[in-house]
Amino acid sequence: MAAPIVFYFDFVSPYGYLGSVGIERLAATCGRSVEWRPILLGISVMKVMGLKPIADTPLKGDYAQHDVPRSAQFMGIAFNRCSQPMQPLAAARAFVWLNAGDPGLAKRFAQAIYQAQWAEACDMSSADAVADLGAGLGIDRAALLAALQDDAVKDALRNQVSAAIAAGVFGVPTFTVDGEMFWGADRLAMVEAWIKTGGW
Amino acid sequence: MAAPIVFYFDFVSPYGYLGSVGIERLAATCGRSVEWRPILLGISVMKVMGLKPIADTPLKGDYAQHDVPRSAQFMGIAFNRCSQPMQPLAAARAFVWLNAGDPGLAKRFAQAIYQAQWAEACDMSSADAVADLGAGLGIDRAALLAALQDDAVKDALRNQVSAAIAAGVFGVPTFTVDGEMFWGADRLAMVEAWIKTGGW
Repeated sequence: MAAPIVFYFDFVSPYGYLGSVGIERLAATCGRSVEWRPILLGISVMKVMGLKPIADTPLKGDYAQHDVPRSAQFMGIAFNRCSQPMQPLAAARAFVWLNAGDPGLAKRFAQAIYQAQWAEACDMSSADAVADLGAGLGIDRAALLAALQDDAVKDALRNQVSAAIAAGVFGVPTFTVDGEMFWGADRLAMVEAWIKTGGW
Repeated sequence: MAAPIVFYFDFVSPYGYLGSVGIERLAATCGRSVEWRPILLGISVMKVMGLKPIADTPLKGDYAQHDVPRSAQFMGIAFNRCSQPMQPLAAARAFVWLNAGDPGLAKRFAQAIYQAQWAEACDMSSADAVADLGAGLGIDRAALLAALQDDAVKDALRNQVSAAIAAGVFGVPTFTVDGEMFWGADRLAMVEAWIKTGGW
């Protein structure tokens, strides 16, 4: 089987949600698996690139507010924005903790977080919201809450974000196919062409 | 005939060049015309949005350097980057001057500037380079050089850039179809769907 597509994601990004659905669909048609890796835009975009979040950027913020649901409809993906801004740290730590033991479960958890946050307008920022969702997937609630405060988990997330940035990842969604990096939910057609042709 | 697609461009942007070729191709298949309007990213992106140019943005600059020729090849468009950074002001003023009298000639001029700068690696920054290219299209060289120093032309460009920003335009290429705005050379598939379905 060919190497997995690497998918860099941050729960904070609605384009990341659209990309998460799109890349799994695409991978299924191409006989590839998808390996999910966390990044935190608060570090890559704000600290390394020195930019503001899109929502706080004049002109672009208003455009994205309009473009995300339009893109979701174009892609045939359910979308419903929560009124609160999302804080992704708890969910990202939970993902890292789960992923160390069971990547399949970690991906189902991540997909459920994305679905709740961006398709069902639930605020998935808090540890309690993340733990409740995890419990619904059969994950031990107390163990998950403990993991969110575990220094080893915090360090592992920091290291994974640093590794992503060192690999050149700056935005979400980012897809890496056989070493070639693509940024944006609107790049899936190019990713598909790259896979099918072997690149150019 | 349906309303023209509005295309906001800046000669400084290689994605704008790719978009300029892509939108004319698309418009031809949809029975639409394309109305070209200038914007200056130095004003929209840097002054209004408070961002750096892509090339000076950590991580994203390196990505774009790699992505532009890759995107050009994906779109079947010739691309060859000049080693000098482009200064678009002279060419933008010449476009505004030409466009006031003959939009068809102004568009051919703009396409020739894009072609020279981004497909043939010529530096089209200087007044002389712009005037030479214009002369090749039958435009009076002395009149063009005079127009570049004409306060009325300078004001007209400033006003057109302000109008674009007031309309929400921030990046290049931007396409507006029946009042709906799309940003990015990678959004042509969505623009096409919007035209063919009447929007959603």
